[in-house]
Amino acid sequence: MTVTAQRPARKGRRQNSRSAKNRAQSGANLKIEQLAWSQPRNPYPPMQIVSEDELQAIHDASMDVLEQIGIDFINADAKAILKKAGANVDPSSDRVRIDRDLVTETIKTAPAQFTLHARNPAHNVEIGGNWIANCLVGSPVATHDQEGGRRDGNTKDFRSFLKLAQYFNILHIIGGYPVEPVDRHASIRHLECIRDFAELTDKVFHAYSLGDQRIRDGIEMTRIARGISHEQLEREPSLFSIINSSSPLRLDDVMLNGIINMSSRNQAIVMTPFTLAGAMAPVTIAGALVQQNAEALAGIMMTQLVRPGAPVIYGGFTSNVDMKSGAPAFGTPEYMKSAIIGGQLARKYNLPYRTSNVNAANTVDAQAAYESVFSLWATTMGHGNMIKHAAGWMEGGLQASLEKLVLDVDLLQMVAEFLSPVQTSPDDLAIDAIRDVGPAGHFFGTQHTQERYKTAFYPPILSDWRNHENWLEAGSPTTMNKAAQVWKQALSEYEKPFMDKAISDELNSFVEQRISEGGVPVDF
Amino acid sequence: MTVTAQRPARKGRRQNSRSAKNRAQSGANLKIEQLAWSQPRNPYPPMQIVSEDELQAIHDASMDVLEQIGIDFINADAKAILKKAGANVDPSSDRVRIDRDLVTETIKTAPAQFTLHARNPAHNVEIGGNWIANCLVGSPVATHDQEGGRRDGNTKDFRSFLKLAQYFNILHIIGGYPVEPVDRHASIRHLECIRDFAELTDKVFHAYSLGDQRIRDGIEMTRIARGISHEQLEREPSLFSIINSSSPLRLDDVMLNGIINMSSRNQAIVMTPFTLAGAMAPVTIAGALVQQNAEALAGIMMTQLVRPGAPVIYGGFTSNVDMKSGAPAFGTPEYMKSAIIGGQLARKYNLPYRTSNVNAANTVDAQAAYESVFSLWATTMGHGNMIKHAAGWMEGGLQASLEKLVLDVDLLQMVAEFLSPVQTSPDDLAIDAIRDVGPAGHFFGTQHTQERYKTAFYPPILSDWRNHENWLEAGSPTTMNKAAQVWKQALSEYEKPFMDKAISDELNSFVEQRISEGGVPVDF
Repeated sequence: MTVTAQRPARKGRRQNSRSAKNRAQSGANLKIEQLAWSQPRNPYPPMQIVSEDELQAIHDASMDVLEQIGIDFINADAKAILKKAGANVDPSSDRVRIDRDLVTETIKTAPAQFTLHARNPAHNVEIGGNWIANCLVGSPVATHDQEGGRRDGNTKDFRSFLKLAQYFNILHIIGGYPVEPVDRHASIRHLECIRDFAELTDKVFHAYSLGDQRIRDGIEMTRIARGISHEQLEREPSLFSIINSSSPLRLDDVMLNGIINMSSRNQAIVMTPFTLAGAMAPVTIAGALVQQNAEALAGIMMTQLVRPGAPVIYGGFTSNVDMKSGAPAFGTPEYMKSAIIGGQLARKYNLPYRTSNVNAANTVDAQAAYESVFSLWATTMGHGNMIKHAAGWMEGGLQASLEKLVLDVDLLQMVAEFLSPVQTSPDDLAIDAIRDVGPAGHFFGTQHTQERYKTAFYPPILSDWRNHENWLEAGSPTTMNKAAQVWKQALSEYEKPFMDKAISDELNSFVEQRISEGGVPVDF
Repeated sequence: MTVTAQRPARKGRRQNSRSAKNRAQSGANLKIEQLAWSQPRNPYPPMQIVSEDELQAIHDASMDVLEQIGIDFINADAKAILKKAGANVDPSSDRVRIDRDLVTETIKTAPAQFTLHARNPAHNVEIGGNWIANCLVGSPVATHDQEGGRRDGNTKDFRSFLKLAQYFNILHIIGGYPVEPVDRHASIRHLECIRDFAELTDKVFHAYSLGDQRIRDGIEMTRIARGISHEQLEREPSLFSIINSSSPLRLDDVMLNGIINMSSRNQAIVMTPFTLAGAMAPVTIAGALVQQNAEALAGIMMTQLVRPGAPVIYGGFTSNVDMKSGAPAFGTPEYMKSAIIGGQLARKYNLPYRTSNVNAANTVDAQAAYESVFSLWATTMGHGNMIKHAAGWMEGGLQASLEKLVLDVDLLQMVAEFLSPVQTSPDDLAIDAIRDVGPAGHFFGTQHTQERYKTAFYPPILSDWRNHENWLEAGSPTTMNKAAQVWKQALSEYEKPFMDKAISDELNSFVEQRISEGGVPVDF
């Protein structure tokens, strides 16, 4: 475990107790303790929920879907590319049927692992293998915090989330707008938001595929922020875009445009069908996964037709709906199974795997926590490589919560700690310490303990382990209460990452120029 | 998934909407939906945190501890048995050193799997293999519920917990006193409590090893409750007792007496060292596990010396303490690792494995949930066979919570659902349904969905998936609020299991006779 050099307990002990107590009460001056930047790796084999034969049956069925039923590709350029590649493109509709051999041969050029380059090289992330990269929540329409309540997405909250994502080392990627800042006009929102990504953080970020101009702007701003040439950008994937199919069995115009723009520049695509079993997909988990797989491979195939070798991530988002109300459900047993089998499918095709830390709770209560940890159980055991919505997601994606972000940071750090190997050197086996203490002794004061106690165990940010009397005396705080303190403190500790003035000037010039041109046309 | 025949949604739909709404609001009349009785089995391979070599290193070190340092066996009969078996018994102290070959040879007679017999044979439980048996919380000193607050353990609460354990099918075993009923005099408490176990439930239960008379009474009452002969009882293990070592490296008089009484009658022992890393055990996880293993194998060896083949379960309870305060911590990354490696050790010796669903939270908030689900993650992936404290445990074991019991029932059911295999028949793969719906369609109304929607997904007891407006309108309830409704409803639905009058009379006669004799002497 690597932790920051200054730990509250030690600092407190060096001060007189009253001072330490006051500081602890005010929450001031003691820096938040967190893990150092690093990408967790999962050293254990991935969990397999279905057998190889069953996995093959899902694959075969998804090939039947692509061959016999087909997918609607609602984009002329995409259809032309598919036709040229030998797919069966219906001249009178958008339907494209694809031979299974064409699918499996075409996707073989996609890399099993690649690096996403950040403007700060120390924050580059590996995607694939046994690497884990955690993304900030993306795309909710509302923000919530305990004090301020629920409100529409706005620029202030948007920036607060970015600062927190920059601050917390366990968050590796800005996975889209943490909340949609509706106070920015849609025609220029992408310009202002991506400038915020680039300036307020130095981590890898995402651009939405919402039309030709927006995604091109995103690519160019990424290049400027990194201060590199077009050629270097094409050698070094630095931006990613989520492509969702419009399930069932459709890829929309802007999505296919996103693939064409991003893949042709060798930037990364995350191909994620949105297949809720019982709604946009069959009510059976296996059936929903058949459809997920057909849609995912259709999009992945497209990336490789555009540019063989272009980085692409297999995305899974299959969950179920509440059959009583139709409401989406997340962090359920069905979600766990789907997320793990999704990983099996991705590995079958030698592709990195994207999955998510999700829940459908309305407040940061036990439900929010159990649905999230069930999700993380599945994403971790199923070897998710890119964990979308890793911190801050609530209400099935409608709400970005500042308190949930802190809770998730703690959960993600605990997962990272869980994945760090147990040491079994002679010193760790501690026979001498056991001998020294002997029956009926105690280990608190021993040298073996003293040498290790500072870093022996993960110190949670939120867990309240006071005895009941002290906890009552403190006002019976819940996890949410503590989290509300922590995000405010983290914001106060946030430091804007350095950006070279020449780059900053170029970025601002680009944005101002594009804004003066009117951004992009919007149809409302 | 097997569910009760009557599901609220269906019943509601058959009624007019106002009536359904009223019923839903009052919570009356709609039976709680829960899984049918069954023991979950884990079809997946157990997770391995340490390699075979590392596991062997832990084993070897624990053998060094037993050979070189030894264990204090504070019981003359036990020492005589050990001496006879060839152990090195220090004549001037309680220290016993045991040769590694003697340990490993002796424990070989313990069964890898066995049945614990309940008075209702339908509630027998398999212990070992890939079976999971969930126990009600055991041994807290206080009860808590949202309305009544925190209070000392008492008979009323004690009985409420028993009724809930009988009511909820996912709870398989009564794992001791769910809360210590201090309003019953210590001299006769065991008689009245075990009578309650036997009358209010028909599931397997536990008796404390708290001296010769108490454990003998427990065995006899178990025999009477089952209505069987002494011989049949010895053929059919029907009672179990937890044996904790007084870590480090001690087995107390009453514990060893428990082993001798229970094992000689072929009843089950759960041998669980209480090794908190940094307190009663080394601060390193590996060191704490070395000590756990030495203490566990010492007790397990004792059972087999008393009666080769007597059922015994390898217990692990290694966690860490908060090094700032000394408070025990549970559901931590360190707990997860220990719990999984504990399973590796148990399987190394072909023994069933006991582990626990634990947390150290003060209230049923996010912390209670995440510590519990992290625990269940480890107990499940590590193939725990007997899950102690599976429902209701709070505050590191000081508090039994009625709301937490309901939360845990939901969590345990979700784990059971997660472990149920995904079906991949042609119907499940759903190609025809995907064809029928086609691009841009919807699966809600299809025949494939209609045929399956009632049982396709696990219906959680607590999860609130309403949209935010409806949730606000309902008063912003948390998981704890909902749980507070559910346990009351479950108590109202509880039905006392049938007991033959002759058995009931015999049980009462025994208890009254023993009470009239004064129970057992107490030294306070």
